[in-house]
Amino acid sequence: MPLSTTMPNRSLSHHISSRRAFLSTSAVAAAHVWIPRPVKGYSAEEVAAQMSGSNGAIGISKWELDTPALCVDLDRMEQNIARMQAAAKQFGIATRPHAKTHKSADIAKKQLAAGAIGICTAKLGEAEALIAHGIERICMTTCNVSPAKIRRAMQLRKTSPHFIQAVDEEQNARALSAAAREAGVVADVMIDVAVGTRSGIPAESALALAKMVDRLPNLKLRGLLSYDGGAQHIAGFDARKQRTLENIAANARVFEDMKKAGLSTEIFSGGGTGTYNIQHLVPGFTDIQVGSYVFMDMQYLAIGGEKNQAVYDDFASSLTVVATVLNNRFPGRLTTDAGAKALTLNMPRAGVIGEPTADYNAGSDEFGVITFKGEPSRSYKIGDRLELIVPHCDPVVNLYDVMYGIRNDRVAQVLPVTARGRSQ
Amino acid sequence: MPLSTTMPNRSLSHHISSRRAFLSTSAVAAAHVWIPRPVKGYSAEEVAAQMSGSNGAIGISKWELDTPALCVDLDRMEQNIARMQAAAKQFGIATRPHAKTHKSADIAKKQLAAGAIGICTAKLGEAEALIAHGIERICMTTCNVSPAKIRRAMQLRKTSPHFIQAVDEEQNARALSAAAREAGVVADVMIDVAVGTRSGIPAESALALAKMVDRLPNLKLRGLLSYDGGAQHIAGFDARKQRTLENIAANARVFEDMKKAGLSTEIFSGGGTGTYNIQHLVPGFTDIQVGSYVFMDMQYLAIGGEKNQAVYDDFASSLTVVATVLNNRFPGRLTTDAGAKALTLNMPRAGVIGEPTADYNAGSDEFGVITFKGEPSRSYKIGDRLELIVPHCDPVVNLYDVMYGIRNDRVAQVLPVTARGRSQ
Repeated sequence: MPLSTTMPNRSLSHHISSRRAFLSTSAVAAAHVWIPRPVKGYSAEEVAAQMSGSNGAIGISKWELDTPALCVDLDRMEQNIARMQAAAKQFGIATRPHAKTHKSADIAKKQLAAGAIGICTAKLGEAEALIAHGIERICMTTCNVSPAKIRRAMQLRKTSPHFIQAVDEEQNARALSAAAREAGVVADVMIDVAVGTRSGIPAESALALAKMVDRLPNLKLRGLLSYDGGAQHIAGFDARKQRTLENIAANARVFEDMKKAGLSTEIFSGGGTGTYNIQHLVPGFTDIQVGSYVFMDMQYLAIGGEKNQAVYDDFASSLTVVATVLNNRFPGRLTTDAGAKALTLNMPRAGVIGEPTADYNAGSDEFGVITFKGEPSRSYKIGDRLELIVPHCDPVVNLYDVMYGIRNDRVAQVLPVTARGRSQ
Repeated sequence: MPLSTTMPNRSLSHHISSRRAFLSTSAVAAAHVWIPRPVKGYSAEEVAAQMSGSNGAIGISKWELDTPALCVDLDRMEQNIARMQAAAKQFGIATRPHAKTHKSADIAKKQLAAGAIGICTAKLGEAEALIAHGIERICMTTCNVSPAKIRRAMQLRKTSPHFIQAVDEEQNARALSAAAREAGVVADVMIDVAVGTRSGIPAESALALAKMVDRLPNLKLRGLLSYDGGAQHIAGFDARKQRTLENIAANARVFEDMKKAGLSTEIFSGGGTGTYNIQHLVPGFTDIQVGSYVFMDMQYLAIGGEKNQAVYDDFASSLTVVATVLNNRFPGRLTTDAGAKALTLNMPRAGVIGEPTADYNAGSDEFGVITFKGEPSRSYKIGDRLELIVPHCDPVVNLYDVMYGIRNDRVAQVLPVTARGRSQ
């Protein structure tokens, strides 16, 4: 889920660093302990080539992968998917997981198989890539505004009858309807109703837009979208719950007004990993667009959960980057091969599994620099591996062509990042 | 060139923001003015497909590209390459440009054609990709430490006789020699002598390592490498010059000691865009590993030059991201389609060309949010384009599959990012 734009980065980073001491000695330290193994090393291409071959390289230890390597613990991820599905069922709502996090057709298939009613994408390019890999029931949560994108969206709708897109403006609605007519389709849309000031139509204007969309000949109104990006990372469950419900109140009235006006409210979708257990309190809410819960990251670990107020451990950290020590020569420091091009954001800091006193700086393009604030758990040689919990999962996944699917510390599956780089 | 690791991010960002007011009214505002055009829009795939066809799409306006689109102004970039080459000639040294910045075989070819004596890479995967696209004389500035990488490096050396790699440790030197023998080659290496505490061998131990490397049967010593990542972004030319010369003093003695000992000092390489006009003051220095000068970015604009102390304008900003306005509904704000997955780092902020009072927040994964601190130069409609100077060029280029090469605001060439994602 996106970083908050209504909460400035400054306060977010302050918040994270103030929780760092605790996090360091709990979530990170509690994650499975690093066990060095003899190092062998394969590149992404070599593993893919070997796995497509008859002998197969399934079974390579994750400690033998060439690095930086993006790994996902499949058992933990599948457990996260099952937990989210069970929670939604208990709350009486559905899940429509957001693929902007994983960009993977394989993971989307697991989510659908577990009971998700559809998959969200942020970009048209993501929708195209996933549909090309067999994912149906895509709901695009951003509006297509340029003529070229609108044409592409209608071509996609033509081949994928369950494709739904967002609309948040009258002129855009007219353009969508005209393009749909040109393509010979009636296109499914939902109204994006703003929470905050980033995207969507303000609640007070939403009903008029919904009525207009409903009258347009080549659009089919399916309901409304209401995503509160700013609420997802609010620290403390109670504060997060209060803010989420306050923020959505006006949109909940839009839902009621649309219903009263006889407009379709079949979909009332929103929420994310930070508010998955809050959104069902909104009357009429149908489904949650949860993304990060499959992987988790340092940013979400820090916000605190309903039960565990200190560490958000409703879901397990499944996504890691394995890195190699390149330099151990300077006291209290290690240099690794995972910098900004392997971890993107440097705030919050990446977590080093098994090293609660490590401060990991990914501010260099090519190098990570660890400064130990206390005693390391062991000594590190050049070539040793380290495993990192990423700062924020979405942009990190977008850097890699493949994720290594790990079971019991060995490669069980190579998952292509199907929509990597599909930012258009 | 990398972000400094010896200079904390906090002081860097403080520095940048304190110069923002000036920058906003000079470098960014002075860049070519945004002229809205009728929007058409093509995706990267569509442009590539059309350009490979007989009719060709060369001539598409950059304002009609689908967005976010990474664009490089070819005239400006070629001017930067010519300027750097002329400066180096005047200083009596050579250039060995770093491809970690552009990751592009096309741009490396332009640099070599202009007179560069070789090309640097940070990663073995980059070297492999560029060599596969016809770039010879690659110098890899990071050490290969895992057995798999060492084997790959020797296979590369076998096919590319001008491939040189860094070494900074005795055990690693032995492993390189053994692998070279196994591959049936004598591999060219240079000693990476540390400046700061990130990578390399401390100066006091470097001569012993050089002697040892010189004796190893399957390694050929070529000289030394001395890159001061921490000095590149020091604000103020005088401070930068003083720190660079202080920091390199011990390494300059290593150079002299190696020379006296009869060891090869054919290469004494280092420096970057921030110190290109300082390194030649070091006796024996042979070549500068300049990277960012081809593109420039907000980070480098802020450090100040020798002549212009306020804005580092020795080279022109050639790299931009074209983005589309998605929402204009909230007063004093605009939302665009270029967030963290289009611009990576959010600090320093991206610059909006022609809008000196715009504060661009790329902290959301998918959206950019502009807050105007003063009056915008014009009103913006949904679908309008904006052009952005990126925060830091290297990791941004690594997000995109292609750069659009622009001349006079039209696409003249599509440049594949040859080594995109080659972080292993």
